[in-house]
Formats: sequence, C-alpha cells, structure tokens
Amino acid sequence: MLNFDFYNPTHIVFGKDRMSELDSLVPKNSNILITYGGGSVNKFGTLDKVLANLPDRKIFQFGGIEPNPQYLTLMKAVEIVKNEDIDFILAVGGGSVMDGSKFIALASCYSGNALNLLNPDSPLAPVDCAIPMGTIVTLPATGSEMNNGAVISHNETKVPIFSIHTFPKFSILDPTLTFTLPKTQVANGIIDTFIHTVEQYVTYPVNAGFQDRTAEGILQTLIEVSDTTLNNPEDYDARANLVWCSTMALNGLIGSGVPQDWTTHMIGHEITALFGIDHAKTLAILQPAIWKVRKEKKKAKLLQYAARVWNITDGTDDEKIDLAIKTTSDFFESLGVSTKLSAYGLNEKNIDSIIASLAKNNRTALSETKDLTLDICREILIKAL
Amino acid sequence: MLNFDFYNPTHIVFGKDRMSELDSLVPKNSNILITYGGGSVNKFGTLDKVLANLPDRKIFQFGGIEPNPQYLTLMKAVEIVKNEDIDFILAVGGGSVMDGSKFIALASCYSGNALNLLNPDSPLAPVDCAIPMGTIVTLPATGSEMNNGAVISHNETKVPIFSIHTFPKFSILDPTLTFTLPKTQVANGIIDTFIHTVEQYVTYPVNAGFQDRTAEGILQTLIEVSDTTLNNPEDYDARANLVWCSTMALNGLIGSGVPQDWTTHMIGHEITALFGIDHAKTLAILQPAIWKVRKEKKKAKLLQYAARVWNITDGTDDEKIDLAIKTTSDFFESLGVSTKLSAYGLNEKNIDSIIASLAKNNRTALSETKDLTLDICREILIKAL
Repeated sequence: MLNFDFYNPTHIVFGKDRMSELDSLVPKNSNILITYGGGSVNKFGTLDKVLANLPDRKIFQFGGIEPNPQYLTLMKAVEIVKNEDIDFILAVGGGSVMDGSKFIALASCYSGNALNLLNPDSPLAPVDCAIPMGTIVTLPATGSEMNNGAVISHNETKVPIFSIHTFPKFSILDPTLTFTLPKTQVANGIIDTFIHTVEQYVTYPVNAGFQDRTAEGILQTLIEVSDTTLNNPEDYDARANLVWCSTMALNGLIGSGVPQDWTTHMIGHEITALFGIDHAKTLAILQPAIWKVRKEKKKAKLLQYAARVWNITDGTDDEKIDLAIKTTSDFFESLGVSTKLSAYGLNEKNIDSIIASLAKNNRTALSETKDLTLDICREILIKAL
Repeated sequence: MLNFDFYNPTHIVFGKDRMSELDSLVPKNSNILITYGGGSVNKFGTLDKVLANLPDRKIFQFGGIEPNPQYLTLMKAVEIVKNEDIDFILAVGGGSVMDGSKFIALASCYSGNALNLLNPDSPLAPVDCAIPMGTIVTLPATGSEMNNGAVISHNETKVPIFSIHTFPKFSILDPTLTFTLPKTQVANGIIDTFIHTVEQYVTYPVNAGFQDRTAEGILQTLIEVSDTTLNNPEDYDARANLVWCSTMALNGLIGSGVPQDWTTHMIGHEITALFGIDHAKTLAILQPAIWKVRKEKKKAKLLQYAARVWNITDGTDDEKIDLAIKTTSDFFESLGVSTKLSAYGLNEKNIDSIIASLAKNNRTALSETKDLTLDICREILIKAL
C-alpha cells in the first residue's frame, strides 16, 4: 500500500425528505446565492422546494450554469457574490452546477485575474479561502458533492481545479430528487461512476485489500442496479444505491494509497471540449480502447477485475482479459451508450485535433506510470473509432 | 436503504515515516498534553520519536492510562489541562489512550461534575466544545482514531460517550509503529475489527449495496491478512491492511443507512467490567453464540455472509448458517483466541452477575430490532459457556 492522506469533511445528509433540514444547515444570517443550471430545477419544482425550506432568508439566484460550466458564465456569478456580500453558496443541480459553484466560491476570494486559476499544469488553486458552500444533488454522477475538485471550461479547454477550501460544508442527497432525470443522464451517471472507480482500481497491484474490494463493491453494485434504475427510475433502493455509489467513487476513499490512472478523463475532456460529446459518453468510448492498448501494463489488475467483478475465470489470461473488456463494452451499450467514436460522426481525421489539444495542454505523459505518450493516445483513439 | 447522516472530518495521515510531519500538524503555539498508556511507548521509542518531531514546543505528559480507561485516572489529566492551559491533546497509543483522551478533552471543557458525562442512557455528551486532539496510533483495533466515540470505565461499568467535538483533528497511522505489538494484541485487533464490521452488517437486509460489499471487503481482507500479520508482524502490507481495515470498520462508513446491532459489545462490556477479560476476547466468545440464538432473525444476512465472505453455498439454509458460524469460531480460535467463557474460568454461576449488570445499565432491549431481552441474553451466555 502506498502512503496517503485522506481528509473529507463534507457532511452528507442522505435520504428521503431531507430538504426539510435545509434551514438548519445553512448558517443563520447568511446572504445566500442559489446557483443552478437550466430549467429542470424550475420545471420539476426543486427550486421551489429549496426556497420554501429557507424562509425569511436573504437569497439571490444565479441560473444558467451550462453543462461543462464556462468560465465567462461563472464570472457573472462572481460579480454577484462580490456586489451582494454573498457569504454562502447553495448549488442545486448536478456536477456542472457544483463544479461551477466551487469555481465561483474560489474566484470570489481571489484578488488577481481569475483566469490565473485555470492552469492545466497546476490544478491546485492559489487561493487561501473560498465562500462556504452546500449542495443539493439532482444528478448522481460526478461525486462533486463530496470532494474538493471541479472541472471548468474555457476556450475549448477543460481545466481541473481543486482546493482544500472547496469541500461542500454539506450535501443533501435525496434520491427522489433524481427520479425525473431523463434516461440518458442516468446512463451517463452510471458510466461516470463506473469509470471513476476503474481509474482508481485498474492500474497495478499494491496489496491494498480494502481499497480494491471497495472499488469492486461499487462496480458490482452499479452492475446490479443499473437496469432497474434506468428503466424503473422510481425504484427508491436502486436509485439510492446509484446515488451513494456515485458519491463514494470520487470522494478520495478508493483512491487512497493506490496508483491512479486518469487517462480516460484526460482524453475525454479534450473530446468534449472539441466536439461537445457528453462527458460520460467520451469515457464509455475510451475505456475499452485504453484497456486494449494497455493490456500488458494492467494485466494483473485486469485479471482481478475480470474474476471479481464479472466472475470471468475460465481460459487463458488473454482470453479472460479480452472477455472482461468486451463485457464492459457490452454493459455500456446495454445502457444505450455507444462505445465508438464513429457513432458520433467522428473519424480518423478528427484524431489529429484531439492529439493537438492534448499536446497543447501538456497531456504527453499520462497514466499511472506516466509513460502514455501522444503516440499511444493516437493508437487508443484509432482503436476507439 | 435507510436515511442517514455521514460526517467525519478527521485528517488521516497514513504510511511509513509520517511522524516527521507532526510539527506541521499540531497547531503552532499550543500547550500540548501528550497522553499515553503503560510503558510500551517508552520501551519501543515511540514517545522519543514524538518528542523529537515536536522541537521547541511547550509539552506536558500524562502517562498511565490503563486498558479500559478509568474515570478517576482521566480526571487527573483534566486537572493538568485546566492548570496548564493545555490547548492540544496528542494521544499516543491504542483505543484506550484515544478514548481516554477524548474524555479528557470533553471533561476539560465541562463546568459541571464530570461524572454527569457518564450516562449509560444518554451517550451524547452535553458539552459544546472539547480540547482539540490528534492521535498517533500504535494498536489497530478500535477505530477510535477516526470516530468521535469513546468507552470509559467507572465503578465496574463501561459507559459509551460521544460528541461532535471529539473527532481527532488528525491521526497518524504508521503501520511500522505497530510491529512491536505482542501477538495477543494483534489477534485482539483483528477480532475487534471483525466484530465491529459484522455488528453493522449481520442484521437484516435493506438493499444497501455499497455498505454491504464494503463490510464484506473488510472481512475478506482481515481473513486474508490475519495469518501473515500475526506470524510475520513486519510484513508491511499485511499490517497496513489490518490498520486501514480497523479504521474503516468504525468510522461511520459501513454503518451509514443500515440497521446496527451492538449486542456483542454491550454484553462484552459487562464481562470485561466484571471479570477483566480483554474486550476483544469477550467479543470472540459472544458473537458465535449470539448468531446461534438469533439465527432466524438474522437469516437473510447470515446466508449472505456465508456465501460472500466464506464462499459457503452448498446445503440447506440451516446447514450453511451453521457452517458459517462454525467457520467464524474456527477463525477466531486460529488466532489463538478462545470462543468459550469456560476458557476464562467462568461458569453458569457467573451468568447471574452479568445479567444483573445488564439490567442495572438498562441493556434490556438490545439488537437491531430492540427485542433482545435479558432472558435471551441468558440463553446466549449459556451457549457461550
């Protein structure tokens, strides 16, 4: 096991009807900025519920945070925070709203040019405070509700950013708030959670029993509930399992003391920035291709994954690994998500621009062993066509 | 899945040579009280290392916290905290030192009679602050390093106590600090961790996929490393897995959103208080007997435990459960720990006093369904003879 630090002070408030506790969770006498995305929190009444549970408070609102939240949009909220002396941000939505709100919280405390906070080479924000925030989660996917990271978009680039100051103070996770999600977003959430997990698990073994088995438990639970929660969204327990797995997949727990390989996300971010393909859908395309190309490097963990997650134990090592990769692709396809670039109209010619973006952002030595070059990225993208 | 809150702000500092970071972890300009137990932190140089890593600090020491820390002992430390304006407590040791230090931290902030804090009917301490504390863990067992609970002994009674203010600010978990532990204490640590896990897992099913599989992962990891870490204590990875499982078994994670059954600990505490038998050894005696008596109530989860933890899938339900219980007993015995009261010289006559203690402390409706009466306790104790 590798040395590690684990620190996660977010208070999780999980379950049915927990929004009724909102008033006791948001500090008294705060000037509150409620942040949200498009119309769904209005359409399905979530915003009304939030307001009803914060009576007699000084509340400002900032809607319109887009998927892949944009720097220029978020800076408009920073102006509100500064002008209205906002001292608590309440993010109501999914990963984009939560991520965007973390950036707002940081940039509002930064006296320099906020663009300096978006540095692909140095995601740790050079800021020694942030406006405190809470979240109300309407989409299980990114885990942003229980971590201190965010991904912000600007000029066709997605930039990760984090800070010790951006853990939400609390996150309300009421699975019933996610019942109205369209099927495609639930499928995206399952895939995002699945990929977060394997990026911290399918690397090389370091004898970390708890972390490995917890990662396997998340994957097995996702596989177990995916069909039910996709096709019967109001099955509370299935959805609750998806929501909790999403949070647990990216709160630092399963990544503590083990190698991590964020290649899938790094290449995926470039594809989303260039072609607007949903984040999770880029991951479903890339993961099987990455494993095919990195089969030897990841052999021991791919065999463990095959055996413990999919119960694949017959055949040669190669056969077991190939079947595990195919079974993973089939699982993604069963959720209605393609695993091929060509399904989104991309072809070999588009690969050059993806490689150019990776080069521009210095993504030239990816993976858990820092030896996944741009040439290997190209090989992966060709396999993913 | 049941509704739940999860909040755990302890910063875990895990791995080899992490004590070198101590100076940056303890707040500057603190008056520090270092608390510890018997002679082993002196004998094996741990205390010297602690002092060497806190140069130029104002340090007081309080040693002699006994196993099952006693109220009267701890109150002597409270005097030091008050007289010397201590504003940080550094606990160096195992569960007893950490638990005792939590009580010192609370009682030092309490203006009333500190005995009021020991109320078997109301473990939540009526205190709105505590002296901040950190821990350096030398014994993997209780999980006290990452929770806010403690068990304090007074007048032949063990009383649980907790508070939102007693989460350690940090805990240094360096597995090498535990290499010198005697075998019997390592066995106790394995059993304590195992029982903490099953008390949050072998109840009734509520469809909590992540929690169940994480609990199973802890049990499987313990079973996997126990022989190695017992007989080859300097095998770093085996010990690191034990240390991390111990912490994870009782930090709130696997108990979130599921029923819990602390019967084993409740009866065990009385046996320790009356007869001085090691805490973990009482658990090893009681758990198989409890499962035998509560077989029907716990049927679904015992079958899941049999299949997923021990791979017991053949036979009738009864046969599978009986074999799972026997295999668990055999596992404890393989660690050199007896699973019978008679091994400690206790017989049927001693059961009356255990029942009387349970009655005195109002432990009359135990278990996840609150229907485990004193008569059933007696039945369990007879099975455990």
